[in-house]
Amino acid sequence: MANAVFIAGDWGTSNLRLSLVDADGAVLDTRGGPGAAAVPAGGFPDTVRGLLADWDAAHGRLPLLLCGMVGSTLGWAEVPYVAAPAGAAEIAGHLHAIDLPFESGGGRAVYIAPGVKGTNLQGAPDVMRGEETQVLGALITHPDLATGDHLLCLPGTHSKWVDLSDGRITGFTTALSGEIYALLSKHSTLARGAQPWDGTPDAGFREGLARVATAGADILHLLFETRARQMAGVLTAKDALGFLSGLVIGGDVAATLARHKALGRAAPARVVLVGAPALNTLYTLALASHGVASLALDGAEQSTAGLLAYFRRL
Amino acid sequence: MANAVFIAGDWGTSNLRLSLVDADGAVLDTRGGPGAAAVPAGGFPDTVRGLLADWDAAHGRLPLLLCGMVGSTLGWAEVPYVAAPAGAAEIAGHLHAIDLPFESGGGRAVYIAPGVKGTNLQGAPDVMRGEETQVLGALITHPDLATGDHLLCLPGTHSKWVDLSDGRITGFTTALSGEIYALLSKHSTLARGAQPWDGTPDAGFREGLARVATAGADILHLLFETRARQMAGVLTAKDALGFLSGLVIGGDVAATLARHKALGRAAPARVVLVGAPALNTLYTLALASHGVASLALDGAEQSTAGLLAYFRRL
Repeated sequence: MANAVFIAGDWGTSNLRLSLVDADGAVLDTRGGPGAAAVPAGGFPDTVRGLLADWDAAHGRLPLLLCGMVGSTLGWAEVPYVAAPAGAAEIAGHLHAIDLPFESGGGRAVYIAPGVKGTNLQGAPDVMRGEETQVLGALITHPDLATGDHLLCLPGTHSKWVDLSDGRITGFTTALSGEIYALLSKHSTLARGAQPWDGTPDAGFREGLARVATAGADILHLLFETRARQMAGVLTAKDALGFLSGLVIGGDVAATLARHKALGRAAPARVVLVGAPALNTLYTLALASHGVASLALDGAEQSTAGLLAYFRRL
Repeated sequence: MANAVFIAGDWGTSNLRLSLVDADGAVLDTRGGPGAAAVPAGGFPDTVRGLLADWDAAHGRLPLLLCGMVGSTLGWAEVPYVAAPAGAAEIAGHLHAIDLPFESGGGRAVYIAPGVKGTNLQGAPDVMRGEETQVLGALITHPDLATGDHLLCLPGTHSKWVDLSDGRITGFTTALSGEIYALLSKHSTLARGAQPWDGTPDAGFREGLARVATAGADILHLLFETRARQMAGVLTAKDALGFLSGLVIGGDVAATLARHKALGRAAPARVVLVGAPALNTLYTLALASHGVASLALDGAEQSTAGLLAYFRRL
């Protein structure tokens, strides 16, 4: 078995994913844990000690590198945002170091990555925390991304559209797409009578994409069609939530492309998707409906790679 | 005291408003009651008998005319939609009549108005139930609206933008503005740390309107600014929800005007707002930020007037 050299942790609001990593970035073992929001105040040290006890017994107390909301006000320690443009050097230079003590003596080195603050395509302040590490990890797994200009999209609760230039994040725009879909599909009148949807790109989803491609990105005036089309008998209860997702994801992509055009930017030749595979698939189809190619990268893998990039700079 | 001739009831999902009305449309008395969703299955007859007992004692069992979700699947009886173009004659011609019996003998004539089905500005099916009666009521209180073309907006949970031509509803588009704002302000990450907002057009609301006027109607990419601006110290927790409302209402208005333009329609000289006074005020400001004049009419008054129009055609 290769030698583990550090532990990578992507610690979001609702989920923790820990990976035991060797010097080449290979993941030797993984485990989950509670999201940052579920850890009581002051509870991070004991949570970490408990989760890592057996890995510690086997490998010694390896350095723990963390990214995500663990560095926010609801996390372990608030780590100030680093201003864009920012690459791995800037992030690694602003890691928040904690020497976690143990009753039995000794300690563990813990490092929490800062988020990035920047300006969105509309010229207003924007922030990310966790996504910067996935972006910088993509540079490790795909070195061709380390030079030149690239547009990345990290789909999720708060999707991030990120401009990357010569290996540094220069600006980014947050879309509320995932959260809007979650709220509408769970709590709105649009969800009434709709059947559950498993997130696969079925006929309903494609119909939603097609709808946006025809009618435009103005989803505020399209969303109600999820209900009105059912009443008119042209959309089934089975297809309703897929249609809704197609409107939201299609709307996110269409609005981004329209914004680029309005700013005089060339249409992107390709978008690099960094996210959960199922969500990447939906965005791939949405981009394809506008004739834009994509490269889909697994978000969890990029997160570990990004933390490796910081570890190498310790 | 003038003679009451009928009882008007606007019976929505979450609220019932009953009015005792004379032959000229003057409201002699009002009372509230449970929303259609709060009435148990089969419970509408007893609810009505109970709520109206003392009016019946004073005035006899006057005809009861109802509009709104009381005519939907979750209401008293499902009344099929009338297809646009539709005016008072078409609606009155399709009232659903119920003879409500009483144990003591005799009965009450109850009439439930149908909703209207039509086509939205994007060419897809759309529906309304209750708003049609407010629109047709506006023709009674403001006869100048009965001829020519007018654009009306009925702001609410599901805002309706209605095209009226020579006194008939020819088409309409639903915006999910009110429901989106309610979901985001109550359940989303945007609401974290934000202070309550009383719905008055304060600095935060105006900032949101200005933001849309500058950055465009694409609110999916603007909504997160509600949070990012607070983190950047350029928006206070006190102004946050007003800013969010400004984005949503401003986005609704901007998207509607953009859609009209894309369809080759002339910009509306005036929009007739039919809604709750506080909400009318917010939309008046949003329209004014685009240089569009408005006429604000109280929604409750128009509803009663619309039911009067049907009553006169019985």
